[in-house]
Amino acid sequence: GFLMAKAQVLAAVGLGLGLVGLRYRRHLWHQVRWLLDMNPPQPDIALLAKVETCIFDCDGVIYQHGTAIPGVTEALKELRNAGKRLLFVTNAAGQSRASLAAKLTKLGVPGVTAADCVTSAYAAAAYLSTAHPQVKRAYTVGMGGLLDELRLAGITPVGEADVGGIEELLASGGTNDEVDAVVVGMLSDQSLCYARLAKAGAYARDKRRPFVGTNPDQNYPGGCQELIPAGGCMVAFVAYAAEREPDAIVGKPRQDLALLVAKLYALKPETTMMVGDRCNTDIAFGRSVGWHSLLVLSGCHTREDVSRARPYERPDYIAASVADLSKLV
Amino acid sequence: GFLMAKAQVLAAVGLGLGLVGLRYRRHLWHQVRWLLDMNPPQPDIALLAKVETCIFDCDGVIYQHGTAIPGVTEALKELRNAGKRLLFVTNAAGQSRASLAAKLTKLGVPGVTAADCVTSAYAAAAYLSTAHPQVKRAYTVGMGGLLDELRLAGITPVGEADVGGIEELLASGGTNDEVDAVVVGMLSDQSLCYARLAKAGAYARDKRRPFVGTNPDQNYPGGCQELIPAGGCMVAFVAYAAEREPDAIVGKPRQDLALLVAKLYALKPETTMMVGDRCNTDIAFGRSVGWHSLLVLSGCHTREDVSRARPYERPDYIAASVADLSKLV
Repeated sequence: GFLMAKAQVLAAVGLGLGLVGLRYRRHLWHQVRWLLDMNPPQPDIALLAKVETCIFDCDGVIYQHGTAIPGVTEALKELRNAGKRLLFVTNAAGQSRASLAAKLTKLGVPGVTAADCVTSAYAAAAYLSTAHPQVKRAYTVGMGGLLDELRLAGITPVGEADVGGIEELLASGGTNDEVDAVVVGMLSDQSLCYARLAKAGAYARDKRRPFVGTNPDQNYPGGCQELIPAGGCMVAFVAYAAEREPDAIVGKPRQDLALLVAKLYALKPETTMMVGDRCNTDIAFGRSVGWHSLLVLSGCHTREDVSRARPYERPDYIAASVADLSKLV
Repeated sequence: GFLMAKAQVLAAVGLGLGLVGLRYRRHLWHQVRWLLDMNPPQPDIALLAKVETCIFDCDGVIYQHGTAIPGVTEALKELRNAGKRLLFVTNAAGQSRASLAAKLTKLGVPGVTAADCVTSAYAAAAYLSTAHPQVKRAYTVGMGGLLDELRLAGITPVGEADVGGIEELLASGGTNDEVDAVVVGMLSDQSLCYARLAKAGAYARDKRRPFVGTNPDQNYPGGCQELIPAGGCMVAFVAYAAEREPDAIVGKPRQDLALLVAKLYALKPETTMMVGDRCNTDIAFGRSVGWHSLLVLSGCHTREDVSRARPYERPDYIAASVADLSKLV
């Protein structure tokens, strides 16, 4: 009687643990691999047979310094011929969905439309429309693509007229715009100036105004000998001036954006793969909603970065380049 | 016998506690006042009789938006007539010691020379000369006063030639200057631009280069309706891009600067008073080396800010303005 009951309890506990393990098998596998310091494997034919949708980061994955990475456009053609859906998700806040599609088309990627593209500029506009639908005018530190996406969402971006230093700021009447939100992203052309950053910081001090950062990226190659500042730096400046963190930094790796993408395209985790060159943005982003994740070494992160990455930032697979996928379909 | 020994032990412990209390009496008094939520008192004649050297913060204390605060220059004259030494310590990194003296003289402060002035620009040059004497060329985000102080210390500031956005940066050859340090402070005129911030961030990524921030200030009135960004924001931008905190932020409230000032002027804590308008910079700075501390309400912080301040940032005394000191000498 007693031994029998004991065996039943043990069996029930074992079954329970087994079911939990089955549910979280990929997470457990990551933990085991991380504990054993094992490298993720290369993608294989079995993986590509499962995957129906490939989501690509762009900079360092599709192109670098404005030119396509060798073999990538050919591989994308073969993936498309094999019936895969190709989507593109970038943190580049200077791009609208339409301008990213145009850029990819110009580089030779076949059949891309704005509907296949998501940028952090679009994510910012989508966030405001959903979480703060009352916003009509947003003071914006950013470039054309961000301004375009805000306008498409019915939000008037304010700030393009602000140029120069503190003297120009005071001469133009100071901080007296009527704005009900602040949006900050990459601004790397001649229009980055004290007056514009100052107004963004001043307006963000009022916590009734939603404060949105497009992306957290610290730096990127940008065609220079050294890494140069990315959109996260403008966010850091404004947040420090405002003595306030943004309400949301909407780009990758934010899970909300992955959920939005999954909803937009009706994606299932087991048939979706995220392909990127950064563990802390692309891979963490894909894994946050259970997509397969592939790190390509054609951009920012190396194998050493993978071994230093936190467990939830480690990819399922590693390949030298997207070009390698052409052999697998 | 036993009772006698017990009494002796108690007396010794009591004497010990008493001596410790005497040594740290001002600190204890601050803690008691903080616990009881008591407001610091006004300065009185007894305090002014003790004090031989008054150290003034400038913005919000001596002047505001470029004009002297009413009654302040008169009070400074009376303090000087009463034999007090007057020193001026500002975090304004745009000022050299000489330019601050000229500004104060122009506003009507009597008998100020560069030798009476210390700025965070001077502090940056002094820090590099002392802690990193090998530095010859420093990439600098900052204005005239900072460049002047670096030159006076034998350090060539690099960066004034960098203007424009990423296109101008790439066209000028990218990040290829020979510099062995990075110095970042307030830059609020037309020369704040992406190219200059980008180079500072890129060079600071190499940890062999000392990275110095002039001051941590987040914002200041600046003549606008709202507070606008101060030097700490440029430091935050560059630090985020460089993925690295500065080796030192040399302005107030850094204790090293208070020790330098104390050494420069051979100051004794019991005869020195720090006068400022910010608890977290001026008051914390003065208290870090045991000077008397007076918060004036003519600038940034209010009585509410005092009650919210951390214990080591609470002033010994509060007055409406420096003008009030004229009644006490």
